[in-house]
Amino acid sequence: MSKYLVFGHKNPDTDAIASAIAFSFYLEKIGHESEAVALGTPNEETQFALNYFNVERPRVVSSVSNEVERVALVDHNEAKQSVNDLDEVEVGFVIDHHRIANFETSNPLFYRAEPIGSTASVIYKLFKENNIDVPKAIAGLMLSAIISDTLLFKSPTSTSQDEKIANELAKISDVNIDKYGLELLKAGTKLSAKSALELVQSDSKTFDMNEQSVRIGQINVIGFDEMLGRKDEILNAMRDEIAENNFDLFVLLITDILESDSIAFVLGENIIPVEKAFKQPVVEEVITLPGVVSRKKQIVPQLTEAFSD
Amino acid sequence: MSKYLVFGHKNPDTDAIASAIAFSFYLEKIGHESEAVALGTPNEETQFALNYFNVERPRVVSSVSNEVERVALVDHNEAKQSVNDLDEVEVGFVIDHHRIANFETSNPLFYRAEPIGSTASVIYKLFKENNIDVPKAIAGLMLSAIISDTLLFKSPTSTSQDEKIANELAKISDVNIDKYGLELLKAGTKLSAKSALELVQSDSKTFDMNEQSVRIGQINVIGFDEMLGRKDEILNAMRDEIAENNFDLFVLLITDILESDSIAFVLGENIIPVEKAFKQPVVEEVITLPGVVSRKKQIVPQLTEAFSD
Repeated sequence: MSKYLVFGHKNPDTDAIASAIAFSFYLEKIGHESEAVALGTPNEETQFALNYFNVERPRVVSSVSNEVERVALVDHNEAKQSVNDLDEVEVGFVIDHHRIANFETSNPLFYRAEPIGSTASVIYKLFKENNIDVPKAIAGLMLSAIISDTLLFKSPTSTSQDEKIANELAKISDVNIDKYGLELLKAGTKLSAKSALELVQSDSKTFDMNEQSVRIGQINVIGFDEMLGRKDEILNAMRDEIAENNFDLFVLLITDILESDSIAFVLGENIIPVEKAFKQPVVEEVITLPGVVSRKKQIVPQLTEAFSD
Repeated sequence: MSKYLVFGHKNPDTDAIASAIAFSFYLEKIGHESEAVALGTPNEETQFALNYFNVERPRVVSSVSNEVERVALVDHNEAKQSVNDLDEVEVGFVIDHHRIANFETSNPLFYRAEPIGSTASVIYKLFKENNIDVPKAIAGLMLSAIISDTLLFKSPTSTSQDEKIANELAKISDVNIDKYGLELLKAGTKLSAKSALELVQSDSKTFDMNEQSVRIGQINVIGFDEMLGRKDEILNAMRDEIAENNFDLFVLLITDILESDSIAFVLGENIIPVEKAFKQPVVEEVITLPGVVSRKKQIVPQLTEAFSD
């Protein structure tokens, strides 16, 4: 049988890259020819993990049907997040931890998804169930994926399963979770080289809330000082974005991933819904959001509700 | 948390019913409240298995959102095969062995599909992985599902995994696979009470082949004698169907599920493509098809090819 290419989603994060490498190794162990590739260059956090465990970064591809007839998807299933020519190959395996949408096959396949903190945790279960040992370097990458996706078990998406698996992987890869985890997450928060516009654009999404165009961005940091020091510069970049895109409101979350707290820069003609949603005043364009880390679970629903009143 | 309803597809077969009962038991064991229901009355074969292992038939439902907020699907995922108000409930689990199509969720879920012979085989793996014992009666039903879906391991969809699992389930349920399997399959082939029209309509599908409307039906039997004895009556029913629906060709497969052979009744203005596809003559409206059991894998592609020349 022909070879599999294994890859995670576009704009890959650590779980997408690490899970592709781990699952490709698993496929080889169960008798398939396989290669892990990526739909984009690893980010700083992922590159830190690859360097730490001395693993080569996967080759970046933008199409697959020119090389293979079949693929395995990790950490995603939606067509828009996947390779552009996905409909020209056969999907033999999907390992994931997201909702299922815009995904369709002609033939039966192996599909394994669980509502837990990371795809790497699901892949670790496959290794265990099939009595396959996880090599030290791959264990280190899988541990990195869990730490990254769960923010060291502090995200509301983290489960006790992820924590248990991470502890087993830490033993195999011989690292101290807290010490290594902090270094890994810090590597992903090196923002000094980024322009204000890059910070404001990089992870922002637009939401329609009661016919208002609401832009919500998120920046992960360790400590708020650096971003507060660049406040004027960032607010100017937000104003430019508002003017250019006719946003009614721009909320830029700045999340301290270790303290599990956020502040947000808030700009817009009507900021009352923000104060109502989070029961905090906006003072000089800043609101404090204690305990908030998840845009999906802790910002969007509350703000949608406030706008609907 | 609220209760789950667990069910298989509409027009349930033995795998749909048995898998619902087995997976509902599994959900209870891992701490959920759960009830197995069905989207239709069990067929003769399934009822035989329920009687044999003294299990009550599941309650038949036509909607679920009036009762529960969340469900688990077994042996299917496509919306058209599922309950009509599926979009009004949350799908928490899917256990399946089919392709994925027309299936979408808003939230992450537990999805487990494998390209093997039956959903019951996938569920058995879950029991094993989680160290949950399978009660004798449920083991008997799961064994029945595997026998039914794989035609006692003779279907091209059967795998070595299904056979191994069936042997383990036979030990637990204390039955002889071959003896019980034959009785079970025979129970599903009691055709004497059915009219010719019922036989001709019950499992028939229409295919467009090079702008010809080709109807292909399938009847499972043990031995061809009974159907050959009713040949004239069945051919007349096929003629009525052709006249009423403007079919260009009608091929009615009669499959001996134990010998893994078929014959077919063939009617139409141009039967040459049939002779070409299967390299056999049609003699007095009958063609012999040695080794053929699967419409999907052994009839449709070959006939499509013959029509395209």
